[in-house]
Amino acid sequence: MFFASDNAGPVHPQIMQRVMAANDGYAMPYGNDPIMDEVRESIRTLFEAPQAAVYLVATGTAANALALACYTQPWQTIFAAQHSHIEEDECNAPEFYSGGAKLTLIPTDDKMTPEVLQAAIARRPQNTNVHMAQAGAVSITQVTEFGAVHTLDELRALTAVAKAADLPVHLDGARFANALVTLGCSAAEMTWKSGVDVVSFGGTKNGCMGVEAVIFFDPEKAWEFELRRKRAAHLFSKHRFLSAQMAGYLEEDLWLDMARSANAACARLTQGLIDKGAELLHTPQANMIFTRFPRATHQKLHAAGAKYYVMGGDVNTGDPAELLSARLVCDWSRTDAGVDEFLSYF
Amino acid sequence: MFFASDNAGPVHPQIMQRVMAANDGYAMPYGNDPIMDEVRESIRTLFEAPQAAVYLVATGTAANALALACYTQPWQTIFAAQHSHIEEDECNAPEFYSGGAKLTLIPTDDKMTPEVLQAAIARRPQNTNVHMAQAGAVSITQVTEFGAVHTLDELRALTAVAKAADLPVHLDGARFANALVTLGCSAAEMTWKSGVDVVSFGGTKNGCMGVEAVIFFDPEKAWEFELRRKRAAHLFSKHRFLSAQMAGYLEEDLWLDMARSANAACARLTQGLIDKGAELLHTPQANMIFTRFPRATHQKLHAAGAKYYVMGGDVNTGDPAELLSARLVCDWSRTDAGVDEFLSYF
Amino acid sequence: MFFASDNAGPVHPQIMQRVMAANDGYAMPYGNDPIMDEVRESIRTLFEAPQAAVYLVATGTAANALALACYTQPWQTIFAAQHSHIEEDECNAPEFYSGGAKLTLIPTDDKMTPEVLQAAIARRPQNTNVHMAQAGAVSITQVTEFGAVHTLDELRALTAVAKAADLPVHLDGARFANALVTLGCSAAEMTWKSGVDVVSFGGTKNGCMGVEAVIFFDPEKAWEFELRRKRAAHLFSKHRFLSAQMAGYLEEDLWLDMARSANAACARLTQGLIDKGAELLHTPQANMIFTRFPRATHQKLHAAGAKYYVMGGDVNTGDPAELLSARLVCDWSRTDAGVDEFLSYF
Amino acid sequence: MFFASDNAGPVHPQIMQRVMAANDGYAMPYGNDPIMDEVRESIRTLFEAPQAAVYLVATGTAANALALACYTQPWQTIFAAQHSHIEEDECNAPEFYSGGAKLTLIPTDDKMTPEVLQAAIARRPQNTNVHMAQAGAVSITQVTEFGAVHTLDELRALTAVAKAADLPVHLDGARFANALVTLGCSAAEMTWKSGVDVVSFGGTKNGCMGVEAVIFFDPEKAWEFELRRKRAAHLFSKHRFLSAQMAGYLEEDLWLDMARSANAACARLTQGLIDKGAELLHTPQANMIFTRFPRATHQKLHAAGAKYYVMGGDVNTGDPAELLSARLVCDWSRTDAGVDEFLSYF
Repeated sequence: MFFASDNAGPVHPQIMQRVMAANDGYAMPYGNDPIMDEVRESIRTLFEAPQAAVYLVATGTAANALALACYTQPWQTIFAAQHSHIEEDECNAPEFYSGGAKLTLIPTDDKMTPEVLQAAIARRPQNTNVHMAQAGAVSITQVTEFGAVHTLDELRALTAVAKAADLPVHLDGARFANALVTLGCSAAEMTWKSGVDVVSFGGTKNGCMGVEAVIFFDPEKAWEFELRRKRAAHLFSKHRFLSAQMAGYLEEDLWLDMARSANAACARLTQGLIDKGAELLHTPQANMIFTRFPRATHQKLHAAGAKYYVMGGDVNTGDPAELLSARLVCDWSRTDAGVDEFLSYF
Repeated sequence: MFFASDNAGPVHPQIMQRVMAANDGYAMPYGNDPIMDEVRESIRTLFEAPQAAVYLVATGTAANALALACYTQPWQTIFAAQHSHIEEDECNAPEFYSGGAKLTLIPTDDKMTPEVLQAAIARRPQNTNVHMAQAGAVSITQVTEFGAVHTLDELRALTAVAKAADLPVHLDGARFANALVTLGCSAAEMTWKSGVDVVSFGGTKNGCMGVEAVIFFDPEKAWEFELRRKRAAHLFSKHRFLSAQMAGYLEEDLWLDMARSANAACARLTQGLIDKGAELLHTPQANMIFTRFPRATHQKLHAAGAKYYVMGGDVNTGDPAELLSARLVCDWSRTDAGVDEFLSYF
Repeated sequence: MFFASDNAGPVHPQIMQRVMAANDGYAMPYGNDPIMDEVRESIRTLFEAPQAAVYLVATGTAANALALACYTQPWQTIFAAQHSHIEEDECNAPEFYSGGAKLTLIPTDDKMTPEVLQAAIARRPQNTNVHMAQAGAVSITQVTEFGAVHTLDELRALTAVAKAADLPVHLDGARFANALVTLGCSAAEMTWKSGVDVVSFGGTKNGCMGVEAVIFFDPEKAWEFELRRKRAAHLFSKHRFLSAQMAGYLEEDLWLDMARSANAACARLTQGLIDKGAELLHTPQANMIFTRFPRATHQKLHAAGAKYYVMGGDVNTGDPAELLSARLVCDWSRTDAGVDEFLSYF
Repeated sequence: MFFASDNAGPVHPQIMQRVMAANDGYAMPYGNDPIMDEVRESIRTLFEAPQAAVYLVATGTAANALALACYTQPWQTIFAAQHSHIEEDECNAPEFYSGGAKLTLIPTDDKMTPEVLQAAIARRPQNTNVHMAQAGAVSITQVTEFGAVHTLDELRALTAVAKAADLPVHLDGARFANALVTLGCSAAEMTWKSGVDVVSFGGTKNGCMGVEAVIFFDPEKAWEFELRRKRAAHLFSKHRFLSAQMAGYLEEDLWLDMARSANAACARLTQGLIDKGAELLHTPQANMIFTRFPRATHQKLHAAGAKYYVMGGDVNTGDPAELLSARLVCDWSRTDAGVDEFLSYF
């Protein structure tokens, strides 16, 4: 009953196997290992982007901050949803990496809407007002912080607003795979065919040890990225162990299988919660649920060893009938049995 | 015959085993895994420093840059040897992490001498001249870039100069283990007992996948380090895989055994080179050799598949008798047979 | 009829006189001029703060950014009103000077309220959550961007919220004098006696050429400020010409006389606008008016050479009856005749 | 007998007059004043550069740091003479403004030589080695820190080295006028016709209150400079008072007259010192002298009220015959009488 986070779950054995196999004598360091060549080709094929520049780093924050820094001047502002990860959970990494750029928060419950994004951009006229932070990149999160998935139409509406203002678009795809299986589209459709310039393609939350790809569809920023990655100390000497994770992740669609498994567990858990009368705070569309149910149920779950985040209240003390909110995240390894056990306490 | 770098060698199987074993279901993320508790205790015991703050990162540059940033204000200058790694091989990471501090390079063939360090510090009077970069941390590399090891007396003479000016001391210990087995002293003696405030305790070059500890003997900087690490995107969610490496590294003195093996291979290779008449450019004291021998020999070695860096000349073209310099690095996995095979081409 | 900005108005002749007089042969550079000694004493006396550290810079943005940087770590966030100058008009200077700190915008029409400030601070628990930007300084603007003046009670309610969270308080006093004459209190009451730690004490908008004092009531940050000022290139060699401006400004309460003159012109203009039926968008409490009146009137005023900012519409084209907003700012040199001339076009 | 610094001397009355005259009612702020139009034209004419982008700031460090930041990425290194102002006297301003670039110091007694510059650049191969700071701008100081003036041939030899490596060239012209009158060439010849891309054109040390022009011969960086200047808080609202200084400075060649006066005083003082047997440490070529003479003479001069910097020894205590070094700087207002009085104490 571990629903705390997909970043606390196990690594898939197939990936571990590739990591072990990579430990075969010597390999050229710093991204010059032959496995990286394989990874680069796999990703270019997967994204139908033969010119793409492809890099690996070990954390999602590094992927986001480095990708954004390549597209943001220090006197610009990045546009992002109010509760986005880059605003709430990265301890000023985007500001640090960009040399002091600002984040302009787009008011929203979860997803940005094109209208509100458009209004925020319009307040930052470019190239005319030296007093103001200038408009910079737009960053979209897919899956969102509250478990929603932008449709292709929604993505395109947002990127169209950015493009109309000549702004680059970053996609924070820490849960890229979970979104993709929800949409059932191609990786290309969810990125460059929908106006995305650079994507953080997550692996860590979906069954890897710690690896994220940064993919630039226009390779113009490639050398700058390499210098920024090195300067930020994110270039690994024994890089083959990053490459191996990503190679194993992509092999035989393991990444999609794992995302399907996570999303299926989430769907089963969602239906179960509805059946049990728990309130849903957002509509789960991938592998995350935000829900609300009585303290008494929380207490039973906690006593039984369930792990998940409770928000805005003390599980142990208070009216047993009071509703407390919870975030439940399914990773690839969640089973029907685990879901059902969780639900049995309701 | 792979002598290119200790960062291109294999991971020790015992460490791989610990990494595999760490993949056992769920673990709390971001350094809250139980293996980290074990690592912290091991390091505190090893360094005889029960109060030390102990953290893990994945690259040596991250360890150096984060450690130095905790002890350096943006208007200060770090004192380091002219050819130190932080100057030559980190693409301005110390400048980036410190917010724009300067590096003052101490002229030297390899090791800093106390006299020259003292003169450089004296040129930066603190708290009196607002126009000048102010004196900041002193960074010492042990093993040095050219393979030398500071004796405890040498270390203490340098830290005494720093302490007299009230400056903090950082030790870049990317090859900490190799130095320690050369000196035959304790980890405490080579660090805080010799005036070191914070150490980058390397694992990557000595048989790990990618892990370095940063150890603050005074825990005053602990929370600042945690914030800086997160902001720099070096806090791993699945941190247990860093912890597991370090746990395996320290277990039953594996780290010292590996360093002894590397240093022994280096000693055998050194003696062989001397016997063969190759010139030594520096006296090897750990696991690195800088040597010079004829192009013809380089050509034979290259033809046979030997890997190492040649400096200042083209192996393929030119007078066969011309002497070309080379760097040879031994990692833990070098064997007598491999060394002897290398020497057989002379 | 020049109501565009108080930063476009003339310098008071008494201040010009002091600047001329300062050009008397040689003076020690970099703030060591004797006039600065006079200024420091005047300000300490004026603020009843004998220990205060007092510095001069030439722009309001420099004063704000340097003052805030002394009280903000790069991983923190500054709390400020949504439309504050530091957010809207300083092109990321606070982010630059602080090394990448964030600004958290407090939603408000103009002034921050203690409740909303408190809620924002509460969302940033200090010293417990490494993922989030940490709570940093609170910055209050007095006079606000829309021409309001915080009462002492309002100021104290805001600083009490900051102090309860152990956060430092900065006062952006670009129009300090205008606020002070509105409140009729002492400089000490409007600053440290109300919980302010550091103030940007403006001169430029109130009849100087370009000078602002930064006043730290606790001198602990003095040396850091001096280094930050120099590093930012804001330490003037011929500093006496900054000192002379500030000396002339403070002499015989010129600064208060000028602020009274500006506020009086504003009051006369406000009453006239009310009498003429113009709508007030905010209640003017110092020297700025935000108002709305028909395009036809704007056209008459423009034809007559009046200067002021029109917001959200084109003066020249459109329905003559449509209401367009305007900002009218009175500086010290506005006369009754000028105000009445302006009103005569209604 | 004031020879301490040209930044401590008086402002020329003609410049003061222009500043007074600028205080005529209202003027558009932030560089949109009409006097700036005049200045821009004067400078473009003077430099024979009709497309040049021309900006004013108030300090020499701001001019240097902003100009260099426009031509330096944070992962690059600026090449400059070992004792250059940007290294020794700007408290890490170049590092701050560039976002953490490095300075590579070219070993020299004073001027850089093309050979040593070339060797330093060659050690930083561009676009091939991600581990190293990349080659960035070359900064040349004219007049040098020790009072020498590069001939046009020397300038061109240095810029040729930069151009061969495709590196931009900055000229720190804090004493531009003093150099120009020494060379007797045109402003264009000493800058873009000799390969300079951007120049800090000093006014402060040569009779202004505080104004420096930054001149980009290629206007490509114009908007970036404007944003950087604003972000750094160096954009003045009452900008007309900067413009007025520069307008007065350039009017009727006042700037050249003042430099001639300073250089002439320096020449007279130099000859006098030679006649008196004082040792010259460098050959004075503009308005600065580095010399050495007995402590007893220093004591007489100090007793008589002479002001200048003594280096490397205590004037008051020690052997009267011991030679102590001094720096003597002549500003525009030095007179023959003052020089002769100084010499009379030898």
